[in-house]
Amino acid sequence: MKLTKRTLAEHTDHIYDAIVVGGGAGGLSAGIYLQRYLLSSLIIDKGKARSFWMQELHNYVGLPADTPGRTLLKQGREHYLSLGGDLLDGYVEEVVDEGETFAVHVKVGRQDSVYQKFRSKYLIVASGIIDYLPEMENMQNVYDYAGYNLHVCLICDGYEMANKKVGVFANSNSNAEVVFPLGWFTPYITLFTQGKFEVAFQLRQKLQKYGYKLVETPIKQFLGKNHQMSGVELEDGTVIELEAGLISMGSKYHADYLQGFNLEKQGGNLVTDKMACTSHPRIFAIGDLKVGLNQVVIAAADGALAATQIWRDIRRRHCQVNEGSSR
Amino acid sequence: MKLTKRTLAEHTDHIYDAIVVGGGAGGLSAGIYLQRYLLSSLIIDKGKARSFWMQELHNYVGLPADTPGRTLLKQGREHYLSLGGDLLDGYVEEVVDEGETFAVHVKVGRQDSVYQKFRSKYLIVASGIIDYLPEMENMQNVYDYAGYNLHVCLICDGYEMANKKVGVFANSNSNAEVVFPLGWFTPYITLFTQGKFEVAFQLRQKLQKYGYKLVETPIKQFLGKNHQMSGVELEDGTVIELEAGLISMGSKYHADYLQGFNLEKQGGNLVTDKMACTSHPRIFAIGDLKVGLNQVVIAAADGALAATQIWRDIRRRHCQVNEGSSR
Repeated sequence: MKLTKRTLAEHTDHIYDAIVVGGGAGGLSAGIYLQRYLLSSLIIDKGKARSFWMQELHNYVGLPADTPGRTLLKQGREHYLSLGGDLLDGYVEEVVDEGETFAVHVKVGRQDSVYQKFRSKYLIVASGIIDYLPEMENMQNVYDYAGYNLHVCLICDGYEMANKKVGVFANSNSNAEVVFPLGWFTPYITLFTQGKFEVAFQLRQKLQKYGYKLVETPIKQFLGKNHQMSGVELEDGTVIELEAGLISMGSKYHADYLQGFNLEKQGGNLVTDKMACTSHPRIFAIGDLKVGLNQVVIAAADGALAATQIWRDIRRRHCQVNEGSSR
Repeated sequence: MKLTKRTLAEHTDHIYDAIVVGGGAGGLSAGIYLQRYLLSSLIIDKGKARSFWMQELHNYVGLPADTPGRTLLKQGREHYLSLGGDLLDGYVEEVVDEGETFAVHVKVGRQDSVYQKFRSKYLIVASGIIDYLPEMENMQNVYDYAGYNLHVCLICDGYEMANKKVGVFANSNSNAEVVFPLGWFTPYITLFTQGKFEVAFQLRQKLQKYGYKLVETPIKQFLGKNHQMSGVELEDGTVIELEAGLISMGSKYHADYLQGFNLEKQGGNLVTDKMACTSHPRIFAIGDLKVGLNQVVIAAADGALAATQIWRDIRRRHCQVNEGSSR
């Protein structure tokens, strides 16, 4: 059931089989599987998963290509709740390993916040990432286009940029490298650095060789209407026409609550085995926080894997106890 | 586009980037990703994927729980075709490795069959498995209930059997072992062997210990109506009431066309790396043919992985060629 500030306290004595941090596609899929294994679960969702911002999913088999991410999330929440799962809109501040259980400290409500502790045997880390966006004086100008034709994921949306005039907005030499795989989809590429970093000599040469333009002047604003970005105006007044954009500025990892754990990582992402288990045997990581493709369908599959492994672990432990007592 | 017997010959000169054998959830997901990477692909589908038989999917996040498997498949086909992919209803008889390409030999049409050869750089093996069913004189009696409350997958449908009187229909001692994890969901279990195998002493003892019944008399027919199986009638006339059933008789692997390849296997399933690549660098395996969970969402994710790796391979090879020529 959906927990509210009022009903919170009723659920704090219960030890959940698993608490899932994050209610995106991965967390919801994990929750659906956990409930179907007759395990008790709580999903804690801070809201606005990365897929919430996707105006059209485009590549999730089974859903029409124009399905918004928020439709999948809404459907997933209803599905999970229909199976008797607990769901709380809140922010996980800290997780403490108590040995057999985890204590999960949650802040609920931005105003008049309530602080509550929940406990579980297993933890599924599904709180994902969010992309850094260009910093503009008026951020609304960015939000107007981000998730429409101002993309954040080449794998997801390269197709949408095919043969278009694309602006790439990067904040470092390594993030700027995305222009080269983007070249698979379109030759009309302009890299915008806004003067935020010194363009390496090698990158400058390579851009020239491929015929990609480089603009280092800061951007005043994105131009366009009806959520369709049609170009940028630079601070010097120059207008550059574009048909699509790709932001490549890295991502914020929503995993501060894991600071007390020394989980194995690779380039900032959690390392997991084939069942989504991290280097801690009772912590599973799914979706964008772990090593692998940042795709909705991958996160959904990860959720199934993690839930299945947790079920197997609990079931086997349960069997051993039963076998033991029958001797 | 959808290829037909008439238009077949127009497509045989083309070398596809990838041919996908199998048009289930995995194959369609792979096709969608391939097309979105601007690669050319052909899906060859013999029809009736395993998910086609599922009356309700229950565990695929984003779709309502009562969505039939065939609805996902129909949606996936439309999605794939809308991206310009080629699709052929046919049966792959043989695949020959020509070094840089594969020759894929297809039989189209059960009557007045046409035989045609297609070629591709990569092969995605997504032709799946199909469960063996109890052999009855009147097979319609089995089809009436299979996929409704006569299940074939514990992971998928354990939840549907919770606290119900369940009949397990097995054809070997090892396949009968499924009764024990089923015990997680319900204690009311009857194992039916139909006298097809000698029940091992250890299994017999363990069944007794857990309080599960054992029936070795052959079954005359399933009883029920409106696709809801309500019990079985044995050959000796005894009627045993049931509320659900689980068939555990193994599966047929749809992969005869791979006989010429010596791909690494584990217990009949193809071994793949984390990007779904088999021990042959240009053959990818996704879904139920490979090691892992037999779940629709896993197959769909596999499709994304395989297509992405093929795109990377082709792109990098392409880049090397370009770099080479610029010297």
